[in-house]
Amino acid sequence: MRAADLAAPFPTVRRDTPAIEAARLLAGQDLPGLIVLDGNGYPATVLAGTQVLRMAIPQYCQDDPTLARVIDEQAADLFLRELGDRTVAQALPEHGRGLAVVAADATVLEIAALMARTGNPLVAVIDKHKQLLGAVTLDALLDRLLLE
Amino acid sequence: MRAADLAAPFPTVRRDTPAIEAARLLAGQDLPGLIVLDGNGYPATVLAGTQVLRMAIPQYCQDDPTLARVIDEQAADLFLRELGDRTVAQALPEHGRGLAVVAADATVLEIAALMARTGNPLVAVIDKHKQLLGAVTLDALLDRLLLE
Repeated sequence: MRAADLAAPFPTVRRDTPAIEAARLLAGQDLPGLIVLDGNGYPATVLAGTQVLRMAIPQYCQDDPTLARVIDEQAADLFLRELGDRTVAQALPEHGRGLAVVAADATVLEIAALMARTGNPLVAVIDKHKQLLGAVTLDALLDRLLLE
Repeated sequence: MRAADLAAPFPTVRRDTPAIEAARLLAGQDLPGLIVLDGNGYPATVLAGTQVLRMAIPQYCQDDPTLARVIDEQAADLFLRELGDRTVAQALPEHGRGLAVVAADATVLEIAALMARTGNPLVAVIDKHKQLLGAVTLDALLDRLLLE
């Protein structure tokens, strides 16, 4: 089994997509993450869902989540407003743990090793022209290996 | 909105649950992760789905996923057999990025900050006796904040 056999269509966003729109896409379709395309339609990066969420969170709370306790409940309920006019580009991690992208002929072990290393349950599959073929999610991978 | 308002029932495993059974639970119910209870029924840890997967992956592939390429396709298809007789306890990360557990009165911002920091789309909610009340998934959190 190769990545091309597992790759399924997956929604994409662009670097200039508003972050709030990306969050709505994630929520509305229960996606494990998002594939971000660059201007040429190539997968520029693959964001795990928690990385999209991170955009909305004040830096001091990211460093120490217990500090979020100083924000009262009413204000906390509205924290996603912090996304404001920010774009997906501003959510991109500065220091990635490796780009979650594989070639069409990658084996299931290569895909799994990449998910384990990046902590990202979503991997983009590209063809030889670096165009997006589709995505493999952790769910899809495990389903194929364990349930069929 | 507090953690107790968001907490929903969630399957749990124990430290001595076979890892392969944990993987089947993840796959069968499309879970974002697993809550591991200790002998007293307290959440001992919360594993992201990719951490469960990591158990099955040879160490050299974890360090460098491209090395997985040396394994041929037929052998790669069977990599989950590496789980063998291992238990969930053997999958527990040695150096966690913070335990994904919150108290019942945690705000949505506290939950979100914890997800962002740990990279884990699953948070366990405990009561004052440290018993599991339920879980909040990233999907559930975003649904409540964005779609209702």
